[in-house]
Amino acid sequence: MHKDKKQKNIKESPLFWPATIKRGVLWVLDETLIPQKMHYIKVHDLPEAVNVIRRMKTRAFGQFLVVLSTFLLIINKSKALSDKALLGQIKKAAGRLNNSRPTFPFSEVTSIVVGWAETALKNGMELRPFVSKNIMGYLAGIRARRLERVCKIADAIKNGDSILTHCNVSGELAMAASICQQQGKEIHFFATETRPYFQGAKLTCWELNRMGAKVTLIADNAVGSVMADGLVNKVIVGSDRSCANGDFANKIGTYQIAVLAEEFGIPFYVLTQPSNKVKKGSDIPIEIRKAKELLVYSGKRAVSGPVDGFYPGFDVVPHQLITKAIAIDVN
Amino acid sequence: MHKDKKQKNIKESPLFWPATIKRGVLWVLDETLIPQKMHYIKVHDLPEAVNVIRRMKTRAFGQFLVVLSTFLLIINKSKALSDKALLGQIKKAAGRLNNSRPTFPFSEVTSIVVGWAETALKNGMELRPFVSKNIMGYLAGIRARRLERVCKIADAIKNGDSILTHCNVSGELAMAASICQQQGKEIHFFATETRPYFQGAKLTCWELNRMGAKVTLIADNAVGSVMADGLVNKVIVGSDRSCANGDFANKIGTYQIAVLAEEFGIPFYVLTQPSNKVKKGSDIPIEIRKAKELLVYSGKRAVSGPVDGFYPGFDVVPHQLITKAIAIDVN
Repeated sequence: MHKDKKQKNIKESPLFWPATIKRGVLWVLDETLIPQKMHYIKVHDLPEAVNVIRRMKTRAFGQFLVVLSTFLLIINKSKALSDKALLGQIKKAAGRLNNSRPTFPFSEVTSIVVGWAETALKNGMELRPFVSKNIMGYLAGIRARRLERVCKIADAIKNGDSILTHCNVSGELAMAASICQQQGKEIHFFATETRPYFQGAKLTCWELNRMGAKVTLIADNAVGSVMADGLVNKVIVGSDRSCANGDFANKIGTYQIAVLAEEFGIPFYVLTQPSNKVKKGSDIPIEIRKAKELLVYSGKRAVSGPVDGFYPGFDVVPHQLITKAIAIDVN
Repeated sequence: MHKDKKQKNIKESPLFWPATIKRGVLWVLDETLIPQKMHYIKVHDLPEAVNVIRRMKTRAFGQFLVVLSTFLLIINKSKALSDKALLGQIKKAAGRLNNSRPTFPFSEVTSIVVGWAETALKNGMELRPFVSKNIMGYLAGIRARRLERVCKIADAIKNGDSILTHCNVSGELAMAASICQQQGKEIHFFATETRPYFQGAKLTCWELNRMGAKVTLIADNAVGSVMADGLVNKVIVGSDRSCANGDFANKIGTYQIAVLAEEFGIPFYVLTQPSNKVKKGSDIPIEIRKAKELLVYSGKRAVSGPVDGFYPGFDVVPHQLITKAIAIDVN
């Protein structure tokens, strides 16, 4: 099948592209409400964008969409500004977005946008259409490359595979599962709950299920047990940030899954980002989130008394534990 | 300090001895309501006893107390029965208790009680006082040996230790922590949440806190991360069932913690039971609990659609991963 045609036939998961501008407003899928309901939050400006990121209404790939789209919002609303003043606003926005969550390399994309704006100004081009077109072209490129990767993931999944995944990989794994089913492959997934946000239970189970894939939920502490019992023969996880040496950061818990996979000789696959500005894993700043997110669930405090909670949002997997990195092609 | 005096000074945790007969009724601490409240369920007979075990109102050591105490209830209520009929009731009760939860070796204690009853009948002794006295003596012996072990645990904990624990070890660790504080040792605990029942969050944090110990809650998936960051220098866990070869079964998640401890060279201590009738870990039947216990939390379904859940209640740690077993002395 021709590649483009193959990609067009892929059934899309809402988590694959969870933020889009329509009629001048950025609609962001509220991932915290899934699976109960699919609700899109309207984001009109920079403070609202920072808010959805910080409150984890969107996460992983959704955050990059929000970051890039926020510049489009700013440009659309800046008709009264001179190009020079607009460049100032773009730089300010870049700074605020970069600082919204520490582990994500937002500066790698915001610096590109700032660069476009500076280029336009320096060369006497109209800033608005130049930067807008570049952002939209950039997004279209990412979209095409992610669809390509979905096909690569499907190729890596073999008939009879039982795949463990952790947290949520923003649509790609579920879409690959859908392709595998079209190809007649019998596959099964184990999804970890991924405490404390339950992204595995809420997002991964939901989207794998929507795609018609078989999925079994396990507690984060059952990974060693299902591996020891031979119930899993492959691990596929996403990554939030990759390093030049191959190390990567991902949702807390990914690291111990990688150690266990090695212990049991289970191949460990990771979907990596084209984000090589950081040399090695220990250079990635790890976001420590509020203890409250761990200590309170469903509005009720899970512990009593002055108990502390420690919630690193991510951990780093050293490249030695990776069997295969499925990268996004960067031309 | 003289041993007996030392033991008398130990501040007791409610989880150390969570079931007692008072005025002909067995009062069982409802561990599912902790930390919100301390409520004791009144157990009057065998079906109620089986019920508190099966519904995990009590667990670990509490179950053994309930099993043994149930025979005292039966004996107290059997005044109208002949000794022969009472033996029949005791045997029937033993069978029902043995089958209440598969992973626990209840038959190892129920068979002792049945043996006492048979001995009494065979030798023409009065069955009721003979069996009752033996059960009470047996319980007193266990109590003394567990208090001895609390002192051993305290000895194993050194000044400056940061100890990771999983699930809940029924009072002993918290009481050891209390001794350590009296000894002026500065220590700190990390407690895993222990999904899906949150015994770590609800029970361990609660009792360590009541004993004045410092405790930090982490998600089950953060164990690898805190170990990699050097935040933990010792692991101490309990065991639900031990084997002759040293393997042991404990709450799901214990196994992967043991693997991670080995990966990071962190000593792994286990409090073992005197339960050596099973040769090796693979001979222990693992209780698979209902998927619902994983899929529903706080009355709300965590997943949508026909998602399955897999909840093995326990896993088995091979003896090779154990640095030190702190056993209960059996004379």
